[in-house]
Amino acid sequence: MKHILDNIHSPDDLQKLSLDELNVLCGEIRSQIIKTVSTNGGHLSSNLGAVELTVALRRVFPSIDDKIVWDVGHQSYTHKILTGRQDRLATIRKKGGLCGYPNREESPYDAFNAGHASTSISAALGIAQAKKLKGEAGNVVAVIGDGALTGGLAYEGLNNAGRFRGKLIVVLNDNTMSISRNVGSIARYLATIRTNPAYRKVKGDVESVLRKIPAVGEHLYRGASKAKSAFKHMIYNNTIFEDLGFLYFGPFDGHDLENLLDVFTNAKDIDRPVLIHLVTSKGKGYHFAEENPGRFHGISSFDIKTGSTSLQETNFSTVFGSTLCSIAAKDRRVCAITAAMQLGTSLSDFAIHYPDRFFDVGIAEEHAVTFASGLAVSGLIPVCAIYSTFLQRSYDQLIHDAALQNAHMVLAIDRGGVVGSDGETHQGVFDVAFLNTIPNTTIYAPSYYEELSADLALAVDASEGIVAVRYPRGSQLFKPFDFTCSGRPYDVYGLPNAAITIVTYGRLFSYACQALFSLREKGLAVSIIKLNRIKPIPEEALALAARAEKLFFFEEGVEQGGVGEHFITALQKGPHVPCCYLRGICGFVKHASMEESLRELALDPAGMENLIESECGKWQ
Amino acid sequence: MKHILDNIHSPDDLQKLSLDELNVLCGEIRSQIIKTVSTNGGHLSSNLGAVELTVALRRVFPSIDDKIVWDVGHQSYTHKILTGRQDRLATIRKKGGLCGYPNREESPYDAFNAGHASTSISAALGIAQAKKLKGEAGNVVAVIGDGALTGGLAYEGLNNAGRFRGKLIVVLNDNTMSISRNVGSIARYLATIRTNPAYRKVKGDVESVLRKIPAVGEHLYRGASKAKSAFKHMIYNNTIFEDLGFLYFGPFDGHDLENLLDVFTNAKDIDRPVLIHLVTSKGKGYHFAEENPGRFHGISSFDIKTGSTSLQETNFSTVFGSTLCSIAAKDRRVCAITAAMQLGTSLSDFAIHYPDRFFDVGIAEEHAVTFASGLAVSGLIPVCAIYSTFLQRSYDQLIHDAALQNAHMVLAIDRGGVVGSDGETHQGVFDVAFLNTIPNTTIYAPSYYEELSADLALAVDASEGIVAVRYPRGSQLFKPFDFTCSGRPYDVYGLPNAAITIVTYGRLFSYACQALFSLREKGLAVSIIKLNRIKPIPEEALALAARAEKLFFFEEGVEQGGVGEHFITALQKGPHVPCCYLRGICGFVKHASMEESLRELALDPAGMENLIESECGKWQ
Repeated sequence: MKHILDNIHSPDDLQKLSLDELNVLCGEIRSQIIKTVSTNGGHLSSNLGAVELTVALRRVFPSIDDKIVWDVGHQSYTHKILTGRQDRLATIRKKGGLCGYPNREESPYDAFNAGHASTSISAALGIAQAKKLKGEAGNVVAVIGDGALTGGLAYEGLNNAGRFRGKLIVVLNDNTMSISRNVGSIARYLATIRTNPAYRKVKGDVESVLRKIPAVGEHLYRGASKAKSAFKHMIYNNTIFEDLGFLYFGPFDGHDLENLLDVFTNAKDIDRPVLIHLVTSKGKGYHFAEENPGRFHGISSFDIKTGSTSLQETNFSTVFGSTLCSIAAKDRRVCAITAAMQLGTSLSDFAIHYPDRFFDVGIAEEHAVTFASGLAVSGLIPVCAIYSTFLQRSYDQLIHDAALQNAHMVLAIDRGGVVGSDGETHQGVFDVAFLNTIPNTTIYAPSYYEELSADLALAVDASEGIVAVRYPRGSQLFKPFDFTCSGRPYDVYGLPNAAITIVTYGRLFSYACQALFSLREKGLAVSIIKLNRIKPIPEEALALAARAEKLFFFEEGVEQGGVGEHFITALQKGPHVPCCYLRGICGFVKHASMEESLRELALDPAGMENLIESECGKWQ
Repeated sequence: MKHILDNIHSPDDLQKLSLDELNVLCGEIRSQIIKTVSTNGGHLSSNLGAVELTVALRRVFPSIDDKIVWDVGHQSYTHKILTGRQDRLATIRKKGGLCGYPNREESPYDAFNAGHASTSISAALGIAQAKKLKGEAGNVVAVIGDGALTGGLAYEGLNNAGRFRGKLIVVLNDNTMSISRNVGSIARYLATIRTNPAYRKVKGDVESVLRKIPAVGEHLYRGASKAKSAFKHMIYNNTIFEDLGFLYFGPFDGHDLENLLDVFTNAKDIDRPVLIHLVTSKGKGYHFAEENPGRFHGISSFDIKTGSTSLQETNFSTVFGSTLCSIAAKDRRVCAITAAMQLGTSLSDFAIHYPDRFFDVGIAEEHAVTFASGLAVSGLIPVCAIYSTFLQRSYDQLIHDAALQNAHMVLAIDRGGVVGSDGETHQGVFDVAFLNTIPNTTIYAPSYYEELSADLALAVDASEGIVAVRYPRGSQLFKPFDFTCSGRPYDVYGLPNAAITIVTYGRLFSYACQALFSLREKGLAVSIIKLNRIKPIPEEALALAARAEKLFFFEEGVEQGGVGEHFITALQKGPHVPCCYLRGICGFVKHASMEESLRELALDPAGMENLIESECGKWQ
């Protein structure tokens, strides 16, 4: 059977379709998304929730000059399908394939790169402001979820956008969730709007309501009459968004295509900031996801018929979660903080067992750290579990609110290093370098589960300062049978005091061991100094490294500002300085599997081996 | 004449005073603040605006267990005076003296360190949450200005605090300014509240209004009756703060001590978050400051009688401002963005001449960068002028919104390096290190005005990526008569190819030259490689440096992750590696004059000279 989707190569092709055909199209898009994500993994719930609103947006705003800025971007699959990329959807999140998020390199229809939350309003305002200054045509639309509204940047954007005198549409895609259940006052506030009788009325007859507005646009705004005010209060209420300067429409059913088309068409010519509040269901159209949107938020491959994924294996996150529960059982001062990542950081058990000491602050990493500092100066021990990439948001708070007063807090940095298919926006490769710049900070980088548990205990027991434990996404890698983590700040493996010495930390130790074996077979003796504590660098490890002739430092993080540069610089102080080679990460790392990324970065066993062989070949 | 203030050694001493005496005390405190700031410099306007509210707070909340969290902290002089530090007020902002901001090391009454804006609500919530968990006594009060409310972190704090079930008071000190005129929708919104007839009524007779509330506290809240709702709407309106879960009281006159005491006393026992909205006048009681609060915000010493300060000399900021105006005259794509620092970054002329291209976004550095990225991807050239210390807030936005899509924007980083009397919270010493970690980024660090102008032109003319120009606070230092900036990425001074080579950049070049002269007199020949572009490091400069026997790298920024470590690591690749010495900044730098700080850090001429002499002594 021929599908309508087969004839959609650009948003222009949407213009020919009837409402019924558009509704059929939405079903086809849903099927394609479910099929693709069940194979490749990806963001299912958020994409299924945004099908109708995307079709309606691209029907009303079909031009490349119409800039749609997707917040986070994990709802942009329909957008990709409609803008000439449906034939490549099967490649999404694979090496060389489509990116899982909007990407300007990928398509001129992608107005702004995203991956982190709460950026869309600020970016869209910049684009709208530029359009106004340059006198360019087209609308600018930011699509933001209610979850992303918990982030301070979204508020800064609203605060600035509210006084903009030009066309700007913000679509609030309110699915009552961020990634897990949405939290905070703004969530409760949105619930108030949704459950208010005016909403149900509008929902029942939105079209007629819209027709009752004499002229949505300048008139309504400029009139500013009592009648308008009364009308607004009755139908639209007086919302925070209006207080912030927006014209507010909603809430509307975000899956009712006909209404969406009306609403967007009406908003198109309003020459001031408009906020359109849509209520959608995460996972819409796939009942397993509707029932459990959290589990289907970011998901690996699954069986469409049963909704089942392979059982969650033990991984660094789960080990962190269970270890923290054990620690909290013995120490009532220990609190856990997550920024809307209760599931991802494996804090669900903690939340159940210690609800008084568990804080999900929403997508608000800045607040997470400053709030933790408040707990810390009061004698509690906050443990902030945050993905490496999102901790970038807290850089100033770590310096100014935590380190400066030497408050003792623990950072559980999940997804440190390359993360795989989420790609550039989510790589956890900056953490070590930016934490390196901060005084009163200690960083542990365990290679194995047992080491993570031991490091976490050390971190909690510390008496002052920031103590970070940084661990990778996924499972631990190969561990030599004759190696045992000592629990000390560093360990040594291989031939002691070999002229060729590798220094590394974290997950890469496994790869270094494999390189060592291979080089040993080729007759090259190598020793490995495995750092467990990477800041401050253990003095004894430096002394040991200084005995090497050739020293190779491998680092799963950005090279500039990383441990390697600091280590090599510190070696200069000694009487003998080895010949030093450093390999870390330079530039942004695109989506691929973790293994593929490390291979491409030459941080896999073969990459290490090749460097050492080429630099030490003369000894063979 | 004996002053009341002479008997105030702790907040307990406030308890004995009558209302009349408290009012006299406020006048005495004002005189002391004016006298002190006129001599030492400091924050005059904000401190004068907060006298009554501080006296009232400490009268109602006198205990060390009552934690008052001052946002920014530039209004905390009265607090310092009342908490046993009046005899040391004359030392404020001087080396070894009182800090200009709250500091936990300084007094147990200082609940939380501050300096940056918008942190107080999050920190206070953490402290209040800890009190609740531990069952500790005392109130927690955050005092935040309307300016700081434009920062996203404040909103994240409100969003989380609004659902807290315990005692927490937020005092909104609304002076209608941030540092210059407040901007954005929230400012307009606050103005709406202030100018509404209900306010005037309350202002006129606040005491009687309060008496009309049957019982401010649990009853009022739990009752949640229609009567309350109607009453609230009539008197207090339905504010954003209530939408976010706070009980709202105000607006009240923030200089009416009697009313303040009533309001705070009533709020004391309310077991849920309360927001008290006070309207104050910046500069209150010193007419020059009342008339021009912006000029008296952060000010150097001035004449009390005339209000006059020494004329503003040419400095790096003014050179930036005038150069940018010239550039903007020729290139219509150039926009300027400031985060509430129009005066400080010398953008006032730009704002007058190019109002359409000038954007003051409020204290919202994150938005500033993401908004700039939106302009940049649309073909404009945004120039974000932000103090080094505040740019820390934008770290994630620089990575994720700017660098990732290689958007071309210019960062004018003012106050790079040590900043003097503002101290630890304001030192601009992290910028180079954190920007070093970001791909697609170029950094220039001019030493002199002419170089700043040339670098700024280069930055605007670049075709892609982030281009930062980083310059220090204040005026350019000594320049040798026989040195001319070439405009190239690096320059060389002194004996070419001397065995002893100094590498440095920015302001420190002047000190390095002085060290060179002194060492030359002692018979040691030195050459200096002066970097103008510090990222990427010019290859030729590296090649030149590799010829040295002993290389000394001096850096006015944190050592770990700085240019020095990267430079020294890069040298390892060459066939000959000099013996390398690195001196940058480690740890936080306390308040003192710029000269004193650099001397203490051994980054002054004598410090450089001593290091070189001690390491090269054997050659003498």
